[in-house]
Amino acid sequence: MGIWFTERQTSDVGITCRIRKTLYAPEDTGIQEMAVVETGQFGKMLILDGTVQTTIGDEFVYHEMIAHIPLFTHPNPKKVLVIGGGDGGTIREIMKHPSVEEAHLVEIDGSVVEVSKKFLPEISCELDNPKVKIIITDGIEYVKKMRGEYDVIIVDSPDPVGPAEGLFKSTFYQDIHDALKEDGLFVAQTESPFYHEELISRVTSSIKGIFPITKLYLASIPTYPSGLWSFTMGSKKYNPLETGAENFQRKMETRYYTPNIHQAVFALPKFVEDMVK
Amino acid sequence: MGIWFTERQTSDVGITCRIRKTLYAPEDTGIQEMAVVETGQFGKMLILDGTVQTTIGDEFVYHEMIAHIPLFTHPNPKKVLVIGGGDGGTIREIMKHPSVEEAHLVEIDGSVVEVSKKFLPEISCELDNPKVKIIITDGIEYVKKMRGEYDVIIVDSPDPVGPAEGLFKSTFYQDIHDALKEDGLFVAQTESPFYHEELISRVTSSIKGIFPITKLYLASIPTYPSGLWSFTMGSKKYNPLETGAENFQRKMETRYYTPNIHQAVFALPKFVEDMVK
Repeated sequence: MGIWFTERQTSDVGITCRIRKTLYAPEDTGIQEMAVVETGQFGKMLILDGTVQTTIGDEFVYHEMIAHIPLFTHPNPKKVLVIGGGDGGTIREIMKHPSVEEAHLVEIDGSVVEVSKKFLPEISCELDNPKVKIIITDGIEYVKKMRGEYDVIIVDSPDPVGPAEGLFKSTFYQDIHDALKEDGLFVAQTESPFYHEELISRVTSSIKGIFPITKLYLASIPTYPSGLWSFTMGSKKYNPLETGAENFQRKMETRYYTPNIHQAVFALPKFVEDMVK
Repeated sequence: MGIWFTERQTSDVGITCRIRKTLYAPEDTGIQEMAVVETGQFGKMLILDGTVQTTIGDEFVYHEMIAHIPLFTHPNPKKVLVIGGGDGGTIREIMKHPSVEEAHLVEIDGSVVEVSKKFLPEISCELDNPKVKIIITDGIEYVKKMRGEYDVIIVDSPDPVGPAEGLFKSTFYQDIHDALKEDGLFVAQTESPFYHEELISRVTSSIKGIFPITKLYLASIPTYPSGLWSFTMGSKKYNPLETGAENFQRKMETRYYTPNIHQAVFALPKFVEDMVK
């Protein structure tokens, strides 16, 4: 006997997890269906529209890697924007950087913030930090209005279906570019090299057309499709392979990120290299 | 409507794959239950005792990484032993190294070799190479009798349950040590850092007690538990981080391995570093 949640990650493969308890029953937020469950393998899990968003067991990989790679690449990040990421995990990692004076979180669905604050305090714990400003609105529209505002922008988006599709488009990357300061840089999550080859090639080529430095890096996240996840950085000035390590302080507590990892994650398997050529 | 195969990778999590066709119905070989199916996501898949062994879609990662890391670490590997690996994928990669004069494959279950030859020619294609000798016997017993025979030994074992349990024991690693030449080295697959922390710590500590150089490295394999897989090398003389790249010839066709990957896979996420300290 057992209750199992199965996410079909593609039409042909899925992950299935034993559920111990439902903490927040699947409920329509007006934008998406949201649930919080307690799994046997990964602890608490946030599910949006049937897709695993984050779990207590492996969220550290995603959140550290989407935040620390750009924040250690920029020598002095003061003003940071996160688009998406209403659970607060990326904000938590950003708050570990003492140089950051302001972090803006633009999330389209306020319920994600509320439910994460209530059920996932381990992840959302820095959302009430006075340096953090939460703006509930469409990130695509928000970023259009900004000019030279941010040192670092992090696109912590869901999969490119429905309203999130626009977060993988060239016009959006141009708006991101314009919203950054003249030495700014951004990172977006860009899906799995095993299952989303076409998307990665297209996104890389869009970002290369806009930013002088474009680099893809990888991290291992068990609850995400294929277990291997990609992130793409577009940077106006700083090269992630020429900075990073020297800024890292061992007193910053991490479970995945290290200065060695900062370098190593840009070494791509041959089939991924070919995808971003 | 759909037919799905689900492997429970732990008691709490599994992978589920759409099956298009059963090519070889589950059958008892006398040692284990074996099946070959055609999946939607990964193409043909070999299943032993309900566990995914290898698939056409992602076998290249496992086989390249278990073979090329040791074979490019050793400056001149001539005689190589593979324990397990009856599907032939590791042998196929070994045969890409012109220095190799002899490769011995010791597999406990002859049916795996036969079925792989028949249904998985993409993987088993080098098993009839005249440099390859297939010995159907228990690898643990075989290796006990060898003294200073091999340059490289590759332990291409299933999970540490049942008869394979002995392949993760200190006494076995000592026998491997004695079966190697005085500058020999070996690699074993050592499961997932996300799910098998205790095993990895124990194995690392056993191998460290026997070999002067012990190093863990990682690769991403979607059909294996968590998608992140570890390999552990024990070496008498050669350090994988001081060799490798210069021996690689771009004319060798690979899809995962590159000289950069050879270095990068030894950079461990913090939580894995802590496991092998």
